[in-house]
Amino acid sequence: MKLINGGVCAPKGFLSSGIHCGIRKNKSKKDLALIYSETIANAASVYTLNEVKGAPIIVTKEHLKDGKAQAIICNSGNANTCNANGIEIAKQMSNIIASELKISPKDVIVASTGVIGNPLDITPIVNGANNLVHSLGKNSIDSAEAIMTTDTKVKEIAVEFEIDGKICHMGGIAKGSGMIHPDMATMLVFITTDCNISQEMLQKALSTDINETFNMVSVDGDTSTNDMVSIMANGLAENKEITQDDDNFKTFMKALNTITVYLCRCIAGDGEGATKLLECKVSGAKSITTAKNVAKSIICSSLVKTAMFGADANWGRILCAIGYSKENVAIDKIDVYFKSDKGEILVCKNGAGVAFSEEKAKEILLEKEIEIIVNLNDGDNSTTAWGCDLTYDYVKINGDYRT
Amino acid sequence: MKLINGGVCAPKGFLSSGIHCGIRKNKSKKDLALIYSETIANAASVYTLNEVKGAPIIVTKEHLKDGKAQAIICNSGNANTCNANGIEIAKQMSNIIASELKISPKDVIVASTGVIGNPLDITPIVNGANNLVHSLGKNSIDSAEAIMTTDTKVKEIAVEFEIDGKICHMGGIAKGSGMIHPDMATMLVFITTDCNISQEMLQKALSTDINETFNMVSVDGDTSTNDMVSIMANGLAENKEITQDDDNFKTFMKALNTITVYLCRCIAGDGEGATKLLECKVSGAKSITTAKNVAKSIICSSLVKTAMFGADANWGRILCAIGYSKENVAIDKIDVYFKSDKGEILVCKNGAGVAFSEEKAKEILLEKEIEIIVNLNDGDNSTTAWGCDLTYDYVKINGDYRT
Repeated sequence: MKLINGGVCAPKGFLSSGIHCGIRKNKSKKDLALIYSETIANAASVYTLNEVKGAPIIVTKEHLKDGKAQAIICNSGNANTCNANGIEIAKQMSNIIASELKISPKDVIVASTGVIGNPLDITPIVNGANNLVHSLGKNSIDSAEAIMTTDTKVKEIAVEFEIDGKICHMGGIAKGSGMIHPDMATMLVFITTDCNISQEMLQKALSTDINETFNMVSVDGDTSTNDMVSIMANGLAENKEITQDDDNFKTFMKALNTITVYLCRCIAGDGEGATKLLECKVSGAKSITTAKNVAKSIICSSLVKTAMFGADANWGRILCAIGYSKENVAIDKIDVYFKSDKGEILVCKNGAGVAFSEEKAKEILLEKEIEIIVNLNDGDNSTTAWGCDLTYDYVKINGDYRT
Repeated sequence: MKLINGGVCAPKGFLSSGIHCGIRKNKSKKDLALIYSETIANAASVYTLNEVKGAPIIVTKEHLKDGKAQAIICNSGNANTCNANGIEIAKQMSNIIASELKISPKDVIVASTGVIGNPLDITPIVNGANNLVHSLGKNSIDSAEAIMTTDTKVKEIAVEFEIDGKICHMGGIAKGSGMIHPDMATMLVFITTDCNISQEMLQKALSTDINETFNMVSVDGDTSTNDMVSIMANGLAENKEITQDDDNFKTFMKALNTITVYLCRCIAGDGEGATKLLECKVSGAKSITTAKNVAKSIICSSLVKTAMFGADANWGRILCAIGYSKENVAIDKIDVYFKSDKGEILVCKNGAGVAFSEEKAKEILLEKEIEIIVNLNDGDNSTTAWGCDLTYDYVKINGDYRT
C-alpha cells in the first residue's frame, strides 16, 4: 500500500473538474464538481439514515439500481432538500450533465450540499455544464474544492496497491465539517478505483468499511440529510475481477480502509471551529457494540469536547460519558489515558482518579492531535472513533450560517 | 393554585440554611445546604440513569428504603463521584448532620455536586455542621444558593393549594446549568410540602411528573452522575392523607407540576452560557413517544441551538433534527413556526419552505424566550421540551472548568 498523488484522478480513466457556476454568490468559491470515468463503472453507495433525505439522494438511489455509473455531479451552496421541486431539479442536473457527456442520465450520481430549504436554481448549472465538462482533466483538487462548504481544508488522498500482479489505484475526496455524526454521517465522499471488482463485492466492501470509519465520526451530533459515500470501479487496471471474499478482496478492503480512515481524520480534524483532532480508542470491551457505543458517547460529549479545547484533563467527564452510553460496563475496571506527540499519561485507574502531573497533562493536551485511550478491562474488543473539540468558532460559524 | 414566597421553607415545619464551610476556595460562594423538617416526613426520590452514579446517590437510595426522611444535606464544589472513599464520605456527611440535628442518619438525604474524581475532604463539613444547623430558619434562598455550581440565578418557587378544605404548601429549589439532558437529567431538585400524602402516592406523583418535566430538559446532552429529585411531605397541613388516585391526588399533581415546570424553565433558561430559553412544542404526533423523541431531538441539536443564538430562522435544521430522531414521521406533513413575545411566524408548511419575512423572523428570534412550534399533522399527541441556545460562553465555561 503506497500513498500517491492525484486524488480521484489517480486511477486510470478517471477525470474530474470543479468550477464556479454561480450557485454561490462569492465568485472565488467553486460550487460545481464533476468526476467522470471514461468507461462505465461498477458503482456502490451508502446514504444518510436521516428520515429527511435530500432530493439528490432519492434520484441517485434510483440511478444506481443497476449498479452502474459513469459520472458524479455535485454542487455546493445549496442542499436541494425540503424543496417542493427538489426531485425535478436533481433529475435536471443529471440530464444536463449526461447530455454534455453523451452518457445516459441513469449513469449519473447526483449530490448536493449546503443550506436546506432554499429552492435550487438550475440556471447556473445549465450555464456552467459545458465549461464543467471542458475543464475535465487529471486534477482532483478542483473537484475537491468545489464540494466544500464550511470545510477549511481540501480533503483528498490516493493509494496504489497490487492485485493479482496488476497495479491498481484508488482515490477519494471528501467534504464534511459540520452536521456530522455517526449513522452514516459522512457528508459527501467520492471514491474512484481502476480495480476490477464486481458490483456486489464493491457494495459489500463499502458497506462493511463504513461501520468502522465514517460511522465512527462525530463533529456535532447532527446527522445530515444529504450524506452519501459513493465509489466507482471501472476495472481499467485489468486485474482478474474480484468476485468473492478472498485475499484479493482483503487487499481491496485494506486500500479502501486507508482511504476512508484518512478522510475520517480529515473530516474530524476539520470539524467546524475545531482546533484539535480527537481520536478515542476504546479497548477491553466485552463486545464490539459496547466498544463502539462507549467510544461514540465520549467523542460526542460536549463537556469532553470543551475540556479538550481548554486542554483540561477533566477525565471525570469521560467516565460520565461512558456512564450514559447505555452500555453496562464495570465502572471500577476502567482506565483512562491521554496521549499525544508529547507523551502519554494515566489519569484514572479502576474507575477512580490517580495522582498525575497537571503540568504534563496540559503539555500533552495542548497538541493538535489527542488520543483519549480507554481500557474497559472487560473483554477483547476494541474500536476507534474520531471527533474534535468544541470551540468558540463552532458557535460563530453556526450562529448565522445562512446570511 | 397560588404562587407564594418562601421556596422550600414555605410549607409548615420546614427550615433551611446555607453556608460557606470551605469546600470551595472562594469564600463568597456558599457550599453547604441543609433542609430540615421538624417532623419526620414521607420521602420519594428519582435518580440519574447514568451507570456512573455518585456515592451520595448510593447512600441516599439506601436511606430512603423505608420511604422516610427528615433532612437533606447537600454540598457544592465537589461531586464525591469516582473516588475510592466516596461512599464512606457520603455516610460521614449523613452521620455528622444527623448527630447535630439529633435524628437518625438513615433519615438523611445526602447529595453532592461539582467536579467528578477529586476526593471530597470531610473536614470543612465537620467544622461547618454546627453552624449549618444553627443557621436554620425560614429562609430558602441560602440553601438555594449553596447548591449552585455554574448557575447564574437562584432557582426557587413555592405554591399554595387546597386539599380537603386545608391550605397546603409546596416549595422547591433547584440547581442545574450544565451536564443536563433527558433521562433524569435534573441536576439537583429538592421539593418540600406540608401536604399529607402516603409515601406510595408521593413516589407515584414524582415518578409520573418527571417524565413530562425534568426528563424533557436538555442543556448539553450530558447526563450527570449525581442527578436527583427528592421530595419530602411532612403532613403538617393536616389534610386527610392522600392514598389513592383521586381528585385530591390530581390537585397535588397539579401543584407539583407547577413547581417542576417552573424549575425546568429556570434550568433550561440558565443553561451554561445560554442567552435564550427554548421551548419546543410538538403536536399532531401519532404517539406520545414520537412527540417526545421529536421534541428532544430538536432541542438537543447543536445546529438548532447555534441558529437560535444567532437569531437565524434556519428551519431546515429543525427538519433535519426531526429526520434523525429515529421516529417514522411523514416529512411532507410537517409545519414549523417560531414564536415569541414579538409574534408568531410560519416558516415551513408540509415539509417545505414558505415565503416569510426574514425581518419579522429576526425580530421574533431576538427575544429571550423562543417557542419552536412543530405540528406533525399526523395524530393527537403533543409534548413540550425545554432547552437553550449554544453560545460562546458555553465553550468558555466548560473549556476550563476545573481551574
